[in-house]
Amino acid sequence: MEGEKKSVVLLNCSVSMFGNRVRIALARKGVAFEEKPENLAAKSALLLSSNPVHGQIPVLIVAGKPVCESLVILEFIDEEFAGVGEPLLPADPYERAQARFWASYIDTRREPRERRRDELVAAMRALEAELGGVGGRYFGGEALGYVDVALAPFTAWFATYERFGGFSVAAECPALAAWAARCVRENACVAASLPEPEFVYQFACGMRKHFGLDG
Amino acid sequence: MEGEKKSVVLLNCSVSMFGNRVRIALARKGVAFEEKPENLAAKSALLLSSNPVHGQIPVLIVAGKPVCESLVILEFIDEEFAGVGEPLLPADPYERAQARFWASYIDTRREPRERRRDELVAAMRALEAELGGVGGRYFGGEALGYVDVALAPFTAWFATYERFGGFSVAAECPALAAWAARCVRENACVAASLPEPEFVYQFACGMRKHFGLDG
Repeated sequence: MEGEKKSVVLLNCSVSMFGNRVRIALARKGVAFEEKPENLAAKSALLLSSNPVHGQIPVLIVAGKPVCESLVILEFIDEEFAGVGEPLLPADPYERAQARFWASYIDTRREPRERRRDELVAAMRALEAELGGVGGRYFGGEALGYVDVALAPFTAWFATYERFGGFSVAAECPALAAWAARCVRENACVAASLPEPEFVYQFACGMRKHFGLDG
Repeated sequence: MEGEKKSVVLLNCSVSMFGNRVRIALARKGVAFEEKPENLAAKSALLLSSNPVHGQIPVLIVAGKPVCESLVILEFIDEEFAGVGEPLLPADPYERAQARFWASYIDTRREPRERRRDELVAAMRALEAELGGVGGRYFGGEALGYVDVALAPFTAWFATYERFGGFSVAAECPALAAWAARCVRENACVAASLPEPEFVYQFACGMRKHFGLDG
């Protein structure tokens, strides 16, 4: 970084799992940023010009240059602020590849269309196995890492998944539930970045109503 | 790399766009490897044990340790063989983020379900714009880079897309067609790694017949 601090602006929506990955990563690095909330029903001109391909949040704008796609942004933060705090990704190429595999896994599993509950629980169990069951503290090992940051924002949605899907994360995946609690309890960057589960649930109820999925 | 050379094995299928990315990247780095062809109708025990989550090719096994997912493998190759040949990704964090964004774009656009031809042409045009139109030699600038390697294997399918879709890549996207020809003409690693377009077409015809899409 060249002497003067670069401006860091995050276009986000407070309930977004993808946007909140970026919040956590910036908070974890201790990078000060300005968040501009987006209304996805009326996207700002800045969002549309910063992400002309997808028009989606999150977008991270550093010194006027936009970076899009949450996992791409996480890697960018790790590289752009390499000298600040602990790295998100491990140093070893093989371990980096494993972390990228699991982050990508989270994203390909994010919108199961059919058998929603069963697929969700199966994906959670696969992640739990990767975590190492009850013995695993974090996907990144002893400390929060890339995969943890990619997954942690989903935990704010766990209560909503449970209420809509009629299942218990803690009963189905006890180690993953313990990991989720650990993320918030031991990491201020996570605790400060996630919305309240009840707020998420009310948001999701509003969306279901809006799209005519509720009576 | 520690003195002795590590064994490098690629589980692949010769018509796969995703597997052939890995072929190109290894050839470009000059890394010797053994390719084990997979029959996707009867997957080997090695494939299933190396990629238990997806059971898909490509898998790159280096010194007995498997790495899955083609873009993850490309980054792994770039890091594991960092001292060999030119890097795939640029050095600058912002440029790396742009390359990752476009590689991810290629993958999210890889299976358009509806309006197949229109979506495909729209995606090709977006890529052509990113290339910089007729002025752009490679996505990586003056030389083949990460996005080029991610996209080049699709060019072996262009003739198949054209014949099934009833359109001409050269007519719709002249700069992209010129780029595709340039990739093969100027890069032995690409020319040596891709199947013949006619072979791909016959393969695709066989698949259509198999799945009952043809008369």
